[in-house]
Amino acid sequence: MTATKSKTWKIKDIKGGITSAQGFRAGAVTAGIKASKKADCGLIISDFPCCCAGAFTTNAVRAASVDWCERLLPSKSIRAVFCNSGNANACTGKQGIADTKKIALDIAKLLDSEKEVVLVAQTGVIGHFLPMDKIGKSIPGLVNNTKKSVANSGADFARAIMTTDTKMKECSFTVSTKSGTFLIGGCTKGSGMIHPNMATMLAFITTDAKISPQNLNLVVKKTVNKTFNNLTVDGDTSTNDMVLVLANGATGVSVNQGDPLLAFEEALYKVCEVLCQKIAEDGEGATKRVEINVCKAASFEDAKKAAKAIANSNLVKTALFGNDPNWGRILCAIGYSGAIFSKENIVLRLCGTTVFKSMRPVVFDAKKLSNLMKKPVVHIDVALGTGKESAVAHTCDLTYDYIKINAEYHT
Amino acid sequence: MTATKSKTWKIKDIKGGITSAQGFRAGAVTAGIKASKKADCGLIISDFPCCCAGAFTTNAVRAASVDWCERLLPSKSIRAVFCNSGNANACTGKQGIADTKKIALDIAKLLDSEKEVVLVAQTGVIGHFLPMDKIGKSIPGLVNNTKKSVANSGADFARAIMTTDTKMKECSFTVSTKSGTFLIGGCTKGSGMIHPNMATMLAFITTDAKISPQNLNLVVKKTVNKTFNNLTVDGDTSTNDMVLVLANGATGVSVNQGDPLLAFEEALYKVCEVLCQKIAEDGEGATKRVEINVCKAASFEDAKKAAKAIANSNLVKTALFGNDPNWGRILCAIGYSGAIFSKENIVLRLCGTTVFKSMRPVVFDAKKLSNLMKKPVVHIDVALGTGKESAVAHTCDLTYDYIKINAEYHT
Repeated sequence: MTATKSKTWKIKDIKGGITSAQGFRAGAVTAGIKASKKADCGLIISDFPCCCAGAFTTNAVRAASVDWCERLLPSKSIRAVFCNSGNANACTGKQGIADTKKIALDIAKLLDSEKEVVLVAQTGVIGHFLPMDKIGKSIPGLVNNTKKSVANSGADFARAIMTTDTKMKECSFTVSTKSGTFLIGGCTKGSGMIHPNMATMLAFITTDAKISPQNLNLVVKKTVNKTFNNLTVDGDTSTNDMVLVLANGATGVSVNQGDPLLAFEEALYKVCEVLCQKIAEDGEGATKRVEINVCKAASFEDAKKAAKAIANSNLVKTALFGNDPNWGRILCAIGYSGAIFSKENIVLRLCGTTVFKSMRPVVFDAKKLSNLMKKPVVHIDVALGTGKESAVAHTCDLTYDYIKINAEYHT
Repeated sequence: MTATKSKTWKIKDIKGGITSAQGFRAGAVTAGIKASKKADCGLIISDFPCCCAGAFTTNAVRAASVDWCERLLPSKSIRAVFCNSGNANACTGKQGIADTKKIALDIAKLLDSEKEVVLVAQTGVIGHFLPMDKIGKSIPGLVNNTKKSVANSGADFARAIMTTDTKMKECSFTVSTKSGTFLIGGCTKGSGMIHPNMATMLAFITTDAKISPQNLNLVVKKTVNKTFNNLTVDGDTSTNDMVLVLANGATGVSVNQGDPLLAFEEALYKVCEVLCQKIAEDGEGATKRVEINVCKAASFEDAKKAAKAIANSNLVKTALFGNDPNWGRILCAIGYSGAIFSKENIVLRLCGTTVFKSMRPVVFDAKKLSNLMKKPVVHIDVALGTGKESAVAHTCDLTYDYIKINAEYHT
């Protein structure tokens, strides 16, 4: 992620998502899992076997689908990713395990493949058995849908995986390297129960670059640790979190070493960062997105601890909702974060205004700063004063609507 | 805390607080720190030098008063405890340290003592300098007030230390042992920024039993770890938390060993437990108190981790507000708590109704359970299925009013 003086690659933002890269198709159907009757099952298919790596929730209570995927990855032969919303298939015991396997098997049959090339992801309410009759009946239509070459089918998939999300979330980039040009794009869902460790909720990323499963795995773990793992909406680590990255090599552009590998890493970071920002912006009840940059830390871990403690503080997040420059709550959160910092050198900035420095409060115009806090993105910048490392955390404010959504999202 | 078959002591709940025990007096004044013009400074004085032990916040950003008290304790010569509300004197650098010392000195002079026998506690907004002129002017009156023998002066003190609290919080007990009878009582404040580690906010406990500083220190640390450290309102550990326990030995009843020591330990536990319940009940915006009992754990630490994760989950707490038996969120929180549990044997009960057992959801009447959840106290019981240890955590629901209070509690 360091900006070299003479970069040999170029990354350009383009419209699109998981079907931007060559050889990837997607589709969606309404199986009837959600009461809303909106699309609730999506499928990604690659024309060629994919190298695939992932990152998964660290919650000890995990959905059967998380275990299914983690056991199969990294892999070099993935063909499809199924995802349903409306039901997390978590805390459902042996029945849940059997149901996940059955879905993989049904799809694999229609692709003339083994079930081990089909990944499964799920999101929704915990502790309810999947309506397998409805899902089973919808699978042939779903596979058929992905065979049609339809524009925006990636967006259809991105919409089918939404739960309390209010916006579909996708992005994509072209990456031109000296070895050739490839595409990378992704989509994600997530709005509440967001405190990934790994990974927030679900994110699916595809690329037509060529990369080994080992390299892909390393880059994915490293990037997720810097992006999705520093994202929080409410401090609750979900049972179903996963990030899957599929590389089908359709362009023949190898990114296994040198500058192309650096380019791929930067592009993957960009995709993950944009998807994180989109989740924070669409956090349950959020009126604004918050980006916390902690720098001058002795280690990345220190910077991360401080940034995440601020991002997780209900008191900081309600103050942000109230446009209240109550910076004491930010310093308090750094204090209990466990991060090492210098009491003498710590500097705290809110929306670009310095509020604490040289061990004492700095006088500022509270009305002016409160007005700056009304913008859609609020920046909190902290220099810990102990070194050169940094980390970024993403979150949103805590509002009446978060309470409303979660007190009324009935089981 | 184990109930022996032939207990040689009796503990009885009586009306009162910090001035119930012999030889303790208290008072309060309005110095003008709070905009509300309500009483904001309180003082406890003991007629005899006290053994005193305490527990303090683990937040690395701490108020000068926390450092002042921690340096002096345990002690056998404490005479007074000053507490102001409306200003935490945290993040105020060298000025804050000097101000704390000046308060102790001013009070000590009026008591013909050294400043090292006066403890100082503070609560309120972070990052503002104390209005020392106002406090200085009010100290002579405050010391005078405590000299009068007024009924309810303990309650006056308990009211003067309130911030966003809606209720004054105190309790007391008589303890009859074979060595004689003594009294123990306490008061506390706390409503938000409650996630003590140690200690929630401020609690002051007095007793006329006779106990050595070493014994008192051991019992205090042990009891606080089981009570205040398992209390949470919003997951934010304050910069000013402290629990102080003063024993002046006025009754001559020694509780340094044997059954009297066990009796003292049980009585202190009761005081701390009642004060915790009172804080949870008065948590910012709370409509109900929540008590989480985790049993059959391999260790106290496991039980505590699981109980605190549930108590801290915004998703659990909004579901409780909505009277929604969404037990999946509880199981999810146990999953990310880090506690060791048995997937096969874990049992989850909500308001006495079993909702998860033998690795699968238990069918229950959702409407009936939702009605049970409307009571002022909700019980969540979890058996981890791995041993015999247990822990209790205290919290409240997360509501619209929490957001209101904290988005509008302006600096």
